[in-house]
Amino acid sequence: MNEGPTIFVIFGVTGDLSQRKLLPALFSLFSHNLLPKKFKIVGFSRRGWTDDDLRNFVRESLESKKVVGSPDQTESFLAHMEYANGIFDDAQAYVNLKQRLDRIDAEFGQCSNKLLYLAVAPAFYEIIFEHLKTSGLNIPCGGELGWTRVLVEKPFGNDTKTAEKLESLLTQIFQEAQIFRIDHYLAKETVQNILTFRFSNSMFEPIWNAATIEKVHIQVFEKNRVEDRGDFYDGVGALRDVGQNHLLQMLALIAMDRPKSMHGDDVRKKRAEILKKVSFSKYSKRILEQAVRAQYQGFLQEKGVAVGSQTETYFKLPAFIANKRWKNVPFVLESGKALRESKAEISVYFKRLDCAEQNVVRFRIQPNEGIEIVFWVKKPGFEKEHQQKVLAFSFDETKLEHQVPDAYERVLFDCVRGDPTLFASTDEVKYSWKFITPILEKWKGLPLTSYLPGSI
Amino acid sequence: MNEGPTIFVIFGVTGDLSQRKLLPALFSLFSHNLLPKKFKIVGFSRRGWTDDDLRNFVRESLESKKVVGSPDQTESFLAHMEYANGIFDDAQAYVNLKQRLDRIDAEFGQCSNKLLYLAVAPAFYEIIFEHLKTSGLNIPCGGELGWTRVLVEKPFGNDTKTAEKLESLLTQIFQEAQIFRIDHYLAKETVQNILTFRFSNSMFEPIWNAATIEKVHIQVFEKNRVEDRGDFYDGVGALRDVGQNHLLQMLALIAMDRPKSMHGDDVRKKRAEILKKVSFSKYSKRILEQAVRAQYQGFLQEKGVAVGSQTETYFKLPAFIANKRWKNVPFVLESGKALRESKAEISVYFKRLDCAEQNVVRFRIQPNEGIEIVFWVKKPGFEKEHQQKVLAFSFDETKLEHQVPDAYERVLFDCVRGDPTLFASTDEVKYSWKFITPILEKWKGLPLTSYLPGSI
Repeated sequence: MNEGPTIFVIFGVTGDLSQRKLLPALFSLFSHNLLPKKFKIVGFSRRGWTDDDLRNFVRESLESKKVVGSPDQTESFLAHMEYANGIFDDAQAYVNLKQRLDRIDAEFGQCSNKLLYLAVAPAFYEIIFEHLKTSGLNIPCGGELGWTRVLVEKPFGNDTKTAEKLESLLTQIFQEAQIFRIDHYLAKETVQNILTFRFSNSMFEPIWNAATIEKVHIQVFEKNRVEDRGDFYDGVGALRDVGQNHLLQMLALIAMDRPKSMHGDDVRKKRAEILKKVSFSKYSKRILEQAVRAQYQGFLQEKGVAVGSQTETYFKLPAFIANKRWKNVPFVLESGKALRESKAEISVYFKRLDCAEQNVVRFRIQPNEGIEIVFWVKKPGFEKEHQQKVLAFSFDETKLEHQVPDAYERVLFDCVRGDPTLFASTDEVKYSWKFITPILEKWKGLPLTSYLPGSI
Repeated sequence: MNEGPTIFVIFGVTGDLSQRKLLPALFSLFSHNLLPKKFKIVGFSRRGWTDDDLRNFVRESLESKKVVGSPDQTESFLAHMEYANGIFDDAQAYVNLKQRLDRIDAEFGQCSNKLLYLAVAPAFYEIIFEHLKTSGLNIPCGGELGWTRVLVEKPFGNDTKTAEKLESLLTQIFQEAQIFRIDHYLAKETVQNILTFRFSNSMFEPIWNAATIEKVHIQVFEKNRVEDRGDFYDGVGALRDVGQNHLLQMLALIAMDRPKSMHGDDVRKKRAEILKKVSFSKYSKRILEQAVRAQYQGFLQEKGVAVGSQTETYFKLPAFIANKRWKNVPFVLESGKALRESKAEISVYFKRLDCAEQNVVRFRIQPNEGIEIVFWVKKPGFEKEHQQKVLAFSFDETKLEHQVPDAYERVLFDCVRGDPTLFASTDEVKYSWKFITPILEKWKGLPLTSYLPGSI
């Protein structure tokens, strides 16, 4: 990578996300020579640690994750790390951080790139944004080189109103090109492959519309219960947790029109167009009539869940796209916890034209990442009977040949090179909430269905 | 099978086709209980044999073909056989044969079905047709039950003129519904599957036209030289041998419009419509400019080949279909002997619309019968590169589960039940020759290219 010197600032460096995902991803990029030649990682957290405490913590994290590297490589990576102590609502901590970054720039002998990663609970977003502004940490020291970018995790807001408030704050502080809103589903190879499949294979585009497609079913199923995230999950629910982001993003990739180019801004524009048309209220009645929300039996006993909680752990509802291409085609979104199996897949069901059988194109996101086409052949023998067969392609074979980047490696790498394709734009976030919020509001007064774990 | 009593009359019962294909096919149908309950097989030939001579011949044929059956089953099958001695141009032999069939009918106690199989060299067709007429063997003794049907093998004529003469003779003697012109390629499972694939899967029909398809390539390649068939082959050549029938029939299946139903007459009508539009002379110039014909080095030394023979053992030429659906789409027909490999396959190449990569749908007739789709996915990694992958389905797995009938079993079975789907109609034969004959005529004066065996 030919980027200039770069400082990665991780807010919440001692937290779960940082330990499980970010630090291993940064190390993997480093060990594959995919980080800028000159770089620093500055970890920011409330704990009263030294640089060496941080390095020990990272060393242990890498070991426990079984991230393989030579001892030399690990030590060389750790030498790039520094620790910055501070509390998120302490203005002085940001001033200190700014001075530290200036000092590193002086060591580099030039203005460097700054990547600010908010690996913190969403509750801290607002306060951090404000302090970034007052301390001037939001201001790049250069232009194309010497940029400052901010990486934020979902959930980004809780409904239209809170999301708008956060957005407004964020966009006062940063330009759109500086903001990278992570949806790690977009960074999965098989999800990215939807675009390649659709726009590199001209045989599929002519049949990708309401004339031939009956419905699209997008499923993200988890077998796990909420585990130790009861507290967080109870305040969010399934629809906010994965519906507003992952499922709607997959819908957008399946339904979007061909972008002018495969560059990030063009792709995001086309995704946003679809999400805008999903959010039209003219479908609200139809959606709410068909929407199902439910809670698994035992959720109320999970640690951190409020007494009598009405939070849904499962939902299934149709979305509709208000354009000619997708007229009346339901995009059924379905997700939940404590379900029969763990899987993420998108099934595109074709109409049975002229009494033909039903074809299905299926994108398997996980497990067994791949693409399959359900089609019909003649049953061998003397009669004109049909039987169903599957044309299947699996990505497994490919993995042996090539490095498949982990979603967080991908996210960090793309942020450094400034490619926004796999990140949600302001508009995308806005329209997603515009679709989700009325449903959440209607649901407030309605009773929840319950289900036995493993029964769906 | 619920058909009434049936007599199978095989003209040329001691010949190669009868021994290698027909008798084993009849035995296989018998051993699977797929012949009518009451039946006889009457073998007609010039050799001065008795019934037992024929039975010994058949017993040996079955053993050498390793057709498995219990000794009881074999003897029970042989008990249905009779031998009728006669020379093809001897009128009395046909009178005798007629009397024999009447006698069998008397034994059955009712008018039976008669299936007349001409397993003889095409040179004998005319004389046999004439004698069938004069002896009255062409006349059914009943209607729906008590039918008489005639099965003829390709090549059916040598050009438009000779084919018309034969057709005219044949249609004077038999009704169209009585005539079963065999193209054993049509009876192959994978060839029949083209229809199922096209019309049972509604996702493919919208892209099956000139807007999305660039070209279709139909290849029947043989690694073998002419072997012991030099005499026959020298008088025919590759284009007549397989082009006029197999390749054009495959073209018709790929290109035909949806028939009103999957019943035989409807399917044949749509195939004939395509062949009619292939035969339009407005493409002649374009075809002849691109047509290649060649002879393998060593052909002139094969047994039975005339000195200085100009017979082609290989050809490659485009056909065009004069309708809107297939406007300007070349259907490239290519076949020959002494080629690099033995294979039969149809490749449908899609256009690269909007700079997409090329998709291919391939029907593999043999070997490894199956269907595959060549398509493109994202190359795993950080870049937006593509790589080619194949969605593949093979019929092999299916064979283990179901009985795949041999093409000749299929042909006999369908003739008995009166299903003409897999047989060529008068119109189909007519239009095929109308396409082929001008090419043959133009080629007469032109020099032949030569090729080393295995070089194509």
